[in-house]
Amino acid sequence: MASRTNSSFVLFSPQNVGFEDRPEPQISDPHEVLLRIKSTGICGSDVHYYNHGRIGKYEVRSPMVLGHESAGVVIKVGPKVTTVKIGDQVALEPGICCRYCVYCRKGIYNLCPKMQFAATPPFDGTLCDVYCLPEDFCHKLPDTLSLDEGAMAEPLSVAVHVMLKQASVKFGDQVVVFGAGPIGLLCCAVARAYGAGKIVAVDINEARLLFAKRYAATDVINATTTSKDATEAAAMISKKAHVQTGGADIVVDASGVESSIRAGIHIVKPGGTFVQAGMGRDDVNFPIAAMCSKELHVKGSFRYGPGDYECAIKLIETGKVDVASLITDIVPFEQAEDAFRGMSGGNSIKTVIRGPSMSTKMPSQA
Amino acid sequence: MASRTNSSFVLFSPQNVGFEDRPEPQISDPHEVLLRIKSTGICGSDVHYYNHGRIGKYEVRSPMVLGHESAGVVIKVGPKVTTVKIGDQVALEPGICCRYCVYCRKGIYNLCPKMQFAATPPFDGTLCDVYCLPEDFCHKLPDTLSLDEGAMAEPLSVAVHVMLKQASVKFGDQVVVFGAGPIGLLCCAVARAYGAGKIVAVDINEARLLFAKRYAATDVINATTTSKDATEAAAMISKKAHVQTGGADIVVDASGVESSIRAGIHIVKPGGTFVQAGMGRDDVNFPIAAMCSKELHVKGSFRYGPGDYECAIKLIETGKVDVASLITDIVPFEQAEDAFRGMSGGNSIKTVIRGPSMSTKMPSQA
Amino acid sequence: MASRTNSSFVLFSPQNVGFEDRPEPQISDPHEVLLRIKSTGICGSDVHYYNHGRIGKYEVRSPMVLGHESAGVVIKVGPKVTTVKIGDQVALEPGICCRYCVYCRKGIYNLCPKMQFAATPPFDGTLCDVYCLPEDFCHKLPDTLSLDEGAMAEPLSVAVHVMLKQASVKFGDQVVVFGAGPIGLLCCAVARAYGAGKIVAVDINEARLLFAKRYAATDVINATTTSKDATEAAAMISKKAHVQTGGADIVVDASGVESSIRAGIHIVKPGGTFVQAGMGRDDVNFPIAAMCSKELHVKGSFRYGPGDYECAIKLIETGKVDVASLITDIVPFEQAEDAFRGMSGGNSIKTVIRGPSMSTKMPSQA
Amino acid sequence: MASRTNSSFVLFSPQNVGFEDRPEPQISDPHEVLLRIKSTGICGSDVHYYNHGRIGKYEVRSPMVLGHESAGVVIKVGPKVTTVKIGDQVALEPGICCRYCVYCRKGIYNLCPKMQFAATPPFDGTLCDVYCLPEDFCHKLPDTLSLDEGAMAEPLSVAVHVMLKQASVKFGDQVVVFGAGPIGLLCCAVARAYGAGKIVAVDINEARLLFAKRYAATDVINATTTSKDATEAAAMISKKAHVQTGGADIVVDASGVESSIRAGIHIVKPGGTFVQAGMGRDDVNFPIAAMCSKELHVKGSFRYGPGDYECAIKLIETGKVDVASLITDIVPFEQAEDAFRGMSGGNSIKTVIRGPSMSTKMPSQA
Repeated sequence: MASRTNSSFVLFSPQNVGFEDRPEPQISDPHEVLLRIKSTGICGSDVHYYNHGRIGKYEVRSPMVLGHESAGVVIKVGPKVTTVKIGDQVALEPGICCRYCVYCRKGIYNLCPKMQFAATPPFDGTLCDVYCLPEDFCHKLPDTLSLDEGAMAEPLSVAVHVMLKQASVKFGDQVVVFGAGPIGLLCCAVARAYGAGKIVAVDINEARLLFAKRYAATDVINATTTSKDATEAAAMISKKAHVQTGGADIVVDASGVESSIRAGIHIVKPGGTFVQAGMGRDDVNFPIAAMCSKELHVKGSFRYGPGDYECAIKLIETGKVDVASLITDIVPFEQAEDAFRGMSGGNSIKTVIRGPSMSTKMPSQA
Repeated sequence: MASRTNSSFVLFSPQNVGFEDRPEPQISDPHEVLLRIKSTGICGSDVHYYNHGRIGKYEVRSPMVLGHESAGVVIKVGPKVTTVKIGDQVALEPGICCRYCVYCRKGIYNLCPKMQFAATPPFDGTLCDVYCLPEDFCHKLPDTLSLDEGAMAEPLSVAVHVMLKQASVKFGDQVVVFGAGPIGLLCCAVARAYGAGKIVAVDINEARLLFAKRYAATDVINATTTSKDATEAAAMISKKAHVQTGGADIVVDASGVESSIRAGIHIVKPGGTFVQAGMGRDDVNFPIAAMCSKELHVKGSFRYGPGDYECAIKLIETGKVDVASLITDIVPFEQAEDAFRGMSGGNSIKTVIRGPSMSTKMPSQA
Repeated sequence: MASRTNSSFVLFSPQNVGFEDRPEPQISDPHEVLLRIKSTGICGSDVHYYNHGRIGKYEVRSPMVLGHESAGVVIKVGPKVTTVKIGDQVALEPGICCRYCVYCRKGIYNLCPKMQFAATPPFDGTLCDVYCLPEDFCHKLPDTLSLDEGAMAEPLSVAVHVMLKQASVKFGDQVVVFGAGPIGLLCCAVARAYGAGKIVAVDINEARLLFAKRYAATDVINATTTSKDATEAAAMISKKAHVQTGGADIVVDASGVESSIRAGIHIVKPGGTFVQAGMGRDDVNFPIAAMCSKELHVKGSFRYGPGDYECAIKLIETGKVDVASLITDIVPFEQAEDAFRGMSGGNSIKTVIRGPSMSTKMPSQA
Repeated sequence: MASRTNSSFVLFSPQNVGFEDRPEPQISDPHEVLLRIKSTGICGSDVHYYNHGRIGKYEVRSPMVLGHESAGVVIKVGPKVTTVKIGDQVALEPGICCRYCVYCRKGIYNLCPKMQFAATPPFDGTLCDVYCLPEDFCHKLPDTLSLDEGAMAEPLSVAVHVMLKQASVKFGDQVVVFGAGPIGLLCCAVARAYGAGKIVAVDINEARLLFAKRYAATDVINATTTSKDATEAAAMISKKAHVQTGGADIVVDASGVESSIRAGIHIVKPGGTFVQAGMGRDDVNFPIAAMCSKELHVKGSFRYGPGDYECAIKLIETGKVDVASLITDIVPFEQAEDAFRGMSGGNSIKTVIRGPSMSTKMPSQA
């Protein structure tokens, strides 16, 4: 069988991208599935690799396809695949774990040391025509969902992992979220879907806060003018947002900013939970004595694990979380580079890249 | 009834202490018990108040009796007391919670905002002749235990709270404890009692490390020579102590030192637990990105809660934890000041003050 | 001060009730509160005591005031009361725990062996004019709630305890509830409030099922015609209600009926949870092998614990649970006996008794 | 390559067994390993299949190799195997899960509906010369352990799963175990290894009780003479064994006998845990009202999951659990049928079958 071409959007070096026709992937394991990619959201990490060529210890040393927030259509299935079939629309869970290590066996596969995660060097991403995944990482989308909404299952799964797995948000909880970017907003949305009594979004971008208030927050706080002293900032935010009874049940930092983390620790109530959801600087000046004397639970949240995609898709399907209104820009695959160049600016929240292939062709028809 | 005198060891101002004959406490609630104090350990916080007159926001503004690690004998019981009787030897759990707030009702009474804790301003401590406590804060000691061992139930309860409630130490766990003072040593001892497979004590005091190795640690590391870089220090400690499979299951910081906390976060395995057990500086430079990407559980541990004293006493009674060998100095009540003055020095681990009353007299015999 | 009279509805012996003017209770502890009772729901247990004079080991041996689902108004507060004030409308949590036993200290006070529970012999109930409670068992009602809704906080707290504390219901769960009486219906309502994806009510009373479908269930099953064989009944119910993926996440039995419990165990998915919420017969023929090989979590649920009333009141306040529509009958205090006599019949769901006192008078005005 | 023969002990029909030379298995997945079986314990389920040809819904419809408690030596590894090498001694975890279903992804793979478990129809067991397993189900044995001890890792893993995963046994717990067969005895041993304060073994076989007392129990009770009434039996057992403070923390039924289960439920303290560890009759008359009003946690325990084998092997290696003394009979492979015939009798606890191959030959040498 002659190898078909697989149009891909490749990062060669910082700010140096282009399109390549790569060989189409082949099914090599009986549980694998080939997918035609239809919609891919641009994530902050994609932009960071585009601009800097690295994130922390992960460095782009050879050309790498970008993108990992994708939805597509099943075009071929391996002989043992039972859970999806050709023609199904699916959201891609874009990290393949080893299935054999202690983490995989325990069900915390996001911590698998052999994880192959899309668009994290050296593994290629999903901004291409055909992508190969094991069936259990393909999450079937209800017919009522668009593939753009399907692509949004990825960031929503991140927020589900933060709010449910790590923070265990419950009806009536008082929640404060620092950072009103896509993840912060989706954390607010999950909190609202689960009945949180108060959802305070904190940011310094007034436009984002306005959006947050319409979207999912009960209160928004512009932190630009807060004190540099963390306890004072915490007191101000708590007072303005009417956070009661000794503090917030849950604080999520989705900003990665030191002043947010510091204020956040002081806002959580004794015995409450603080989740670090966004990575910024490696180290921050951290109020460890307050953390200790209040017996806080401080947790990191990293990607997603079993059940998170299923939950995210149900949240979208039932209308509990609206992901469509976060999509502020839609561009065709051919304009991917422009999309990346434009990401530094303004008021857009989430840009989605359509394609490469607009119509769905089965492999036998190619 | 004429008020009897209650000899007490009082802190008037920093490094200014003395003895006072105060009025003997009276039972004012039917569940209260009067205790004749027989043995009291000196805690680092007592010494800190003695030297500085304050710890964080807690400031000694009026004369305060010192001491809170005590055991004594029941000399009078209120009319509703059913669980102890006159003559019983008990360990004192020296913090009285309000019983009405949401924390008390939920069973996390150590976080009660109205907690009245002995020798934390403005509440008097236990270095006196007669002390009043509700019956459920008096923990009966088996006849086989000395009252000095009973006094040690307090720091051991702190370690139980750290290792069981917060760290959930289990058979086979790899545990690293920073700081080989009394709390760190007792954390090692609890880890050993629960079957931890590796117990690494890290300190910069070689004498303490020698003791730790004999006492409860499987490995000891002198951190004096470790790198200033936290990841390098972590790697060195892990290598020297043969910590395997991606890192330690549990790291406890009982030192309060920034370099320990930083190295500790890098030593924990993905998904593992870090417990802050000792309070040092308010803020530390903290490796938040490592915490986040490894999805660590970082917890504060503050005093003790329901069941901790019972567990501590059983650990002593069954010989699973040896507290007697931590008692390096025993002094009579009259020499309390000398004991406090000498605490800054050398190789002593725990000093216990006997008395004031050497023989047990019933109130009616006074 | 002359003792005022306290009009009370008393059970003398089975089916022998009447009104008595008893002495008004006095505040004997500084945290106590006097309440004027305004609304009281009749519970199945009240009716059972009325008809039979006993429930299990609890036997009415001397005259006992009935009622425990009440709301009222604060008319007097003890000197240490800080959380409610005269004039506040509150729901009564009608069981006073000892605060000193291991259960109370751990925060599972509903298991306190010294519990004094209203209208459980030998303790008098709340169908009287003035009732005395500690402040922390008085739960303040928002102004937007009626006192009849406040009385419903009691059965709703039972359902909250079942669905959250024991079953941990989550968004998307498939839930099956056997028994569509007040507790079963409220369990359905809590499941819906928490986003359960499927809520199947099973009963043999068609009118109740019709109500359940309008009220909170997504599916209703009339079990009258199901097979006597438990696995067949389970299969039929699962099929009719389209329960998927190996079974229900949660099954609650609020019927106490053997055939329901048996079918229920077979409906739960492997690793799922079954909660026994209603007590019927002491013993039932139980499918223990199925329970074992599916590793089910089978739990009893008994009354309510810390946080349950707060949660129930928030659910009513936010409109997440509608308790008003369960109140099918409202009668004045004087007609309490008629209300009890009529409880055996037909289609009523919850009867509420108003009074004794219709207007709220302060004690000083009495 | 000519197929080598694989000597196997096969059940053809009830009580009709024999030896067959079957084709040697081949590695078909790069993570698979070939093992030469050296030691296999006989389990009650093997004997049940031997005698009756079925257990519940599992029926032997075609000839099936018996045995699943085995240890052996690695003789060949697939190209991706990294965790074991040729020559390693390993304990076999004899159930292969699908790795793709929701249970496998969540880490509760023992509930995988596609589980292929050795010697559970239609899957062949391990009583053969060469057996094929994925590497992560091969648990490396320390050199200090014999292969007979390695075979015992299987039943010990069952007990670890019962006592740790389901019962969460802790230092100081009061534990009652019904049934002093191999699983019951190992549950006692795990309880002792974890510091349980009281371990009561209940059985009707005096010889087994004598063994239990020497082996791991603090108290033994012969239930032959207990009352038929469950509460009376419970009271008698609690009294004789000095179970305190409202009942046992944990009760395990490893007998499958109705009277044990009934007494067991009445022995657990309020809020305590009952684990069903042995399967006997499908249905039992069960004290559901007591379970409900005490808010018990009743759990099934089925085989083992992630970490259980690792824990079992560490318990043997560290000497915390002695499995060697449970091995009362050792027979060569050729006498397997005699061993099965003799299992109905007497005082043996565990019979181990050695072989087929006594010396370890590499496949290339075969």
